[in-house]
Amino acid sequence: MTERRLVVIGGDAAGMSAASRARRLRKPGELGITAFERGRFSSYSACGIPYWTGGVVDGPDALVARTPEEHRERGIDLRTRTGVTEIDLAGQRVRARDLTSGQEAWHGFDDLVVATGARPLRPPLEGIDAAGVHGVQSLDDGQALLDGLARTSGRRAVVIGAGYIGVEMAEALLRRGFSVTVVERSAQPMATLDPDMGALVREAMCGMGIEVVTDTAVTGIVTGPDGRAAAVATADREYPADVVVLGLGVRPETSLAEAAGLPLGESGGLLTDLAMRVRGHENVWAGGDCVEVLDLVSGRTRHIALGTHANKHGQVIGTNVGGGYATFPGVVGTAVSKVCDLEIARTGLLEAQARAVGLRFVTATIESTSRAGYYPGACPMTVKMLAERGTGRLLGVQIVGREGAAKRVDVAAVALTARMTAGQVAALDLGYAPPFSPVWDPVLVAARRVAAAVAEG
Amino acid sequence: MTERRLVVIGGDAAGMSAASRARRLRKPGELGITAFERGRFSSYSACGIPYWTGGVVDGPDALVARTPEEHRERGIDLRTRTGVTEIDLAGQRVRARDLTSGQEAWHGFDDLVVATGARPLRPPLEGIDAAGVHGVQSLDDGQALLDGLARTSGRRAVVIGAGYIGVEMAEALLRRGFSVTVVERSAQPMATLDPDMGALVREAMCGMGIEVVTDTAVTGIVTGPDGRAAAVATADREYPADVVVLGLGVRPETSLAEAAGLPLGESGGLLTDLAMRVRGHENVWAGGDCVEVLDLVSGRTRHIALGTHANKHGQVIGTNVGGGYATFPGVVGTAVSKVCDLEIARTGLLEAQARAVGLRFVTATIESTSRAGYYPGACPMTVKMLAERGTGRLLGVQIVGREGAAKRVDVAAVALTARMTAGQVAALDLGYAPPFSPVWDPVLVAARRVAAAVAEG
Repeated sequence: MTERRLVVIGGDAAGMSAASRARRLRKPGELGITAFERGRFSSYSACGIPYWTGGVVDGPDALVARTPEEHRERGIDLRTRTGVTEIDLAGQRVRARDLTSGQEAWHGFDDLVVATGARPLRPPLEGIDAAGVHGVQSLDDGQALLDGLARTSGRRAVVIGAGYIGVEMAEALLRRGFSVTVVERSAQPMATLDPDMGALVREAMCGMGIEVVTDTAVTGIVTGPDGRAAAVATADREYPADVVVLGLGVRPETSLAEAAGLPLGESGGLLTDLAMRVRGHENVWAGGDCVEVLDLVSGRTRHIALGTHANKHGQVIGTNVGGGYATFPGVVGTAVSKVCDLEIARTGLLEAQARAVGLRFVTATIESTSRAGYYPGACPMTVKMLAERGTGRLLGVQIVGREGAAKRVDVAAVALTARMTAGQVAALDLGYAPPFSPVWDPVLVAARRVAAAVAEG
Repeated sequence: MTERRLVVIGGDAAGMSAASRARRLRKPGELGITAFERGRFSSYSACGIPYWTGGVVDGPDALVARTPEEHRERGIDLRTRTGVTEIDLAGQRVRARDLTSGQEAWHGFDDLVVATGARPLRPPLEGIDAAGVHGVQSLDDGQALLDGLARTSGRRAVVIGAGYIGVEMAEALLRRGFSVTVVERSAQPMATLDPDMGALVREAMCGMGIEVVTDTAVTGIVTGPDGRAAAVATADREYPADVVVLGLGVRPETSLAEAAGLPLGESGGLLTDLAMRVRGHENVWAGGDCVEVLDLVSGRTRHIALGTHANKHGQVIGTNVGGGYATFPGVVGTAVSKVCDLEIARTGLLEAQARAVGLRFVTATIESTSRAGYYPGACPMTVKMLAERGTGRLLGVQIVGREGAAKRVDVAAVALTARMTAGQVAALDLGYAPPFSPVWDPVLVAARRVAAAVAEG
């Protein structure tokens, strides 16, 4: 039997999950596995960087689920500090460059996994590449930021962008003793929520002492005589900054794939089938932050960079490459985050997203508590729910609150997957005991309310 | 228009939710509402009694959601300290007795709601009615127990029964400074879990300093010269006790209903249709702890005494009596509880329950954590999952852990309601961020494992 050759581009969650799963199913001799990773780390949790920055967790080693050495011990030829510079589909080979020596070589494959991840948005502003301006995409970025924080004696930080990364970095810098300003282009922080729910996040952030500047575009980074970032400029004024953090979101890193002619979707992510095979390419697979995924609620593909999806993609790819059968059915758009003790969660569609795909809907927003009102530690929680007009089908849920708010959204995520109506959600048999929930769980209260709104037309 | 007359028997969750909902839909003049309650309190949280006993919450007033006066102000003629002694279905009337004066009178009804609740099991043992032996079903029971605790200088407590009430009362008495022994007939505490999961609860309880005596039947209560309980006797020995608490579970309180010829199920609860109408009786409704509910997983009716169901039943009854339309589709058997910091949850069927209805299944038990392993406060969690052989349909989930364990069972409750397979559960888009979950949520890990077991046959 000839050894099949699997080549993986990208050594983080999707790529190494695929490699590991394939290795569990196929021994060396049956399947040779080579993986290329530009950085020094493998299988790490980029989601942990804000907590490492904030001093809540150790890093970078604690954020690594499996080191390159551990992968190699398991029979995966993982080459770090090695970038792939070209995919030759017709020739079934990739060209890899050793970033230390600069040497290049071609490597043939029978199956190829593209797991090139995402790149942070870095708008072409003056000063954006100055010292003191930090992205937070890789562990190397995290280390550079921590080194930068250690070097500066100033205590003013500006975060550009108030999405997940932006608000998490605001917390981290606050914990490090910085006074923090967040500058956001939209009307409210957390554009992944409807503006009325984002307003609750703004209010809480202001209460934590974070300055939140919205409806404001950054026009440039002002540098000092030493060439380091000194302020963030907007049309109206400058915000002094000893450190600047970019939290503007990410785009799929698909330049290699695009150059090779692989199919991309509207947001630039690779398009795959349900088995995570790149559309139209029998032996090319893709997963993680470089692909678009099917949104089960809207029926459209979307780009969602999230480690939990990347891990699932890798598992599916590895199973299929290893001769088994698995699919990734799609997502419903669940995301949870926190700023200090404020928990933020969403799943399904926002109002604007629902409108954009032609759905008409009603909404309900309720306030409740995480535990029975009389139980110590009961925290307020706001739940907003969207349901389709006529059918009552659940379309989306957003939750902002304190302890116990974020993971409550999982109930809605399952209900969305099962295409339940709000009325069905209102009747769900959820766990009740005074330390864990009011007798009507907040999600049930919201569902009852929105179901009534559906009934009223 | 003649005023219709609604009579409600029982002034707690189901009865008063029904009355309140009906009142919101129909004004006085359209609908007269009279409710009879044997005790002094209305609409209270019996589930809060263990926390009141433990000094965690205030009582009894804080445990009352709506007082009799508040109900009366809303146009409900609620008569406390008034018991119903007979239901005359043919005559459409009930006989009520004022428990203070002893006077009786008949009251006619057009619609009747039976919400008589449950009664605690009190086995006919010698000494069971002695001073110092306490049930914990009503707020009056709770007050009597607290008065008893205040009077005794001893610090030894014995709890008979290690179900939900038993383990919650063990925590409460521990908090009050008692040394606590729990005596249980089964092999493990929490017979609402499989024995292997119950063993985890035992281990944790022992770690908290609670003495757990299992496989042991209580043979009597030994009384002292003053007639007060002094010890709990078993076949082998006596356990000295300054206070004895009964936590043996409850049975539906349906003696009135049975005498009137209303249909009862195997566990003695009233049988209703999906609108909560008593089967075969157009104008008689029943809800709360006195009814049996449809278990959507097994397809059988079961008795489950739980405030959250009682509230939903009341809402459904009140809507229907008020001229609207609502149903209670059934339950999946979700229950959550805690002993100190140990969280205990279940939903769906146990192994023995699945076998009893003819289901064949595979199981998987996994250990994971509540947060990313590197995030502070990550607590271990054990998840056991049952899935049907062949189809892979999810049948039941049990979780034992610390913070974040209990409410995770809600995901499984929704999946059971939607009749998902374990494979579908493993692909769910649940919220992920390091402070809230490992990249694979523990429920997903268990689902993946049990789906693999299904595939292996």
